[in-house]
Amino acid sequence: MNKEITMEYRVPYADTDMMGVVYYANYLVIFERARNELMRAMGYTYKQCEADGFMLPVIHAELDYRGSAKYDDLLEVRAYVKTMKGVRIEIACEIRRKGEEALLVSGFTRHAFVSTKTFRPVAPPEIFSRQ
Amino acid sequence: MNKEITMEYRVPYADTDMMGVVYYANYLVIFERARNELMRAMGYTYKQCEADGFMLPVIHAELDYRGSAKYDDLLEVRAYVKTMKGVRIEIACEIRRKGEEALLVSGFTRHAFVSTKTFRPVAPPEIFSRQ
Amino acid sequence: MNKEITMEYRVPYADTDMMGVVYYANYLVIFERARNELMRAMGYTYKQCEADGFMLPVIHAELDYRGSAKYDDLLEVRAYVKTMKGVRIEIACEIRRKGEEALLVSGFTRHAFVSTKTFRPVAPPEIFSRQ
Amino acid sequence: MNKEITMEYRVPYADTDMMGVVYYANYLVIFERARNELMRAMGYTYKQCEADGFMLPVIHAELDYRGSAKYDDLLEVRAYVKTMKGVRIEIACEIRRKGEEALLVSGFTRHAFVSTKTFRPVAPPEIFSRQ
Repeated sequence: MNKEITMEYRVPYADTDMMGVVYYANYLVIFERARNELMRAMGYTYKQCEADGFMLPVIHAELDYRGSAKYDDLLEVRAYVKTMKGVRIEIACEIRRKGEEALLVSGFTRHAFVSTKTFRPVAPPEIFSRQ
Repeated sequence: MNKEITMEYRVPYADTDMMGVVYYANYLVIFERARNELMRAMGYTYKQCEADGFMLPVIHAELDYRGSAKYDDLLEVRAYVKTMKGVRIEIACEIRRKGEEALLVSGFTRHAFVSTKTFRPVAPPEIFSRQ
Repeated sequence: MNKEITMEYRVPYADTDMMGVVYYANYLVIFERARNELMRAMGYTYKQCEADGFMLPVIHAELDYRGSAKYDDLLEVRAYVKTMKGVRIEIACEIRRKGEEALLVSGFTRHAFVSTKTFRPVAPPEIFSRQ
Repeated sequence: MNKEITMEYRVPYADTDMMGVVYYANYLVIFERARNELMRAMGYTYKQCEADGFMLPVIHAELDYRGSAKYDDLLEVRAYVKTMKGVRIEIACEIRRKGEEALLVSGFTRHAFVSTKTFRPVAPPEIFSRQ
């Protein structure tokens, strides 16, 4: 089963700030795009996840900024399940300029599986426990 | 009854782009902030509006960009009801640097009153017909 | 020469609002992504444009909202040069759900060619006058 | 000297997502707004900081999400200098609903003082070493 994906992302002007680089909060949106593709590759989109009664709210996020993505850069974004324990899952993300080794931004998000009905923690859908 | 407000808004780095000015889409967020304050001043917040079963989705928007707001500018944002006819309302917005005459950005949004239950057009809440 | 493109765009959670649909300002970011790809297809990226001393600030924008894009929708975005006259260019944009006829959002942006050195209007780069 | 501020922030629709709460990346923008006001209260705006040749790029960020801010909430945002050592500064941020004790989101950002000319680390402006 696919626990890792890489996706491409083209940086629009919208993502930049007056320093000429991608604004620091916007990397969390790129992280989300990568998580979406990770779950799609696992055969269980987040959309389906919510339809089945599971939410995955973020409870913690960390980012390390080592370099700067710029306008019109084609980025290569890697996402993978870092840890999975009980109702918690951590998904890591690495952002590089496509074809380059150097890490621009890396980090991870920690999520809890929560019921969309009770808003209480719940055991993950089976597909995750089978990982 | 108050059909016009002005509010202040301080521009964060987040709103700027690599051209050094506020990114063009972000003015629509400032328009929304001003609409919220306009409805609050009218004694009927948009939050209450939705709680009462009315939505006001945007069906048309226009913006004229004449100048550029910059990081840390303190803006003065004026919003007012431009037209009100049947289930439709138009709200205009003008953005200036505080204490300056020159218009930076102006425009308006057109909305339809829609029921949150049926998603069909509905007569506006009484407070609007009394305007 | 290519004066029209279509591109795909996958809607992230980030683009949605509490009404469950894409927030109205975010379509202007999708418009920008499409303009970038339009210029790339014309063989002259906006990045190159700026490097050559030309900026294309937006002076007017209009949007018609007819339907609602939702989370995880795969959108098909069409952009094309609508008019080109003197130092002005208008670029139109249409957003549909991929594989569907119905227009969700359409609109256009009007831009002026401006020198990055003088900030004054300038004749467009030759590639545009050859259109 | 003022090393701590609290500011108010009203949540617009723009900040929310389809889960009905503020999207996780948008708290980093609120953090930035609070940092701006912190520096203004210290008598040295970030705008002046850049004009004097100093940048403060973010090199690390962490956020803990304990609760959820919602549309039209009036938030109380507290920011303070957490640590200051060499060329590095950490600024912490806490977000609550105004008048409530419960922490919604907290976190911090780590920055390095960098020269706008050389893009190399530099000693902070005197106002910071005097803290």
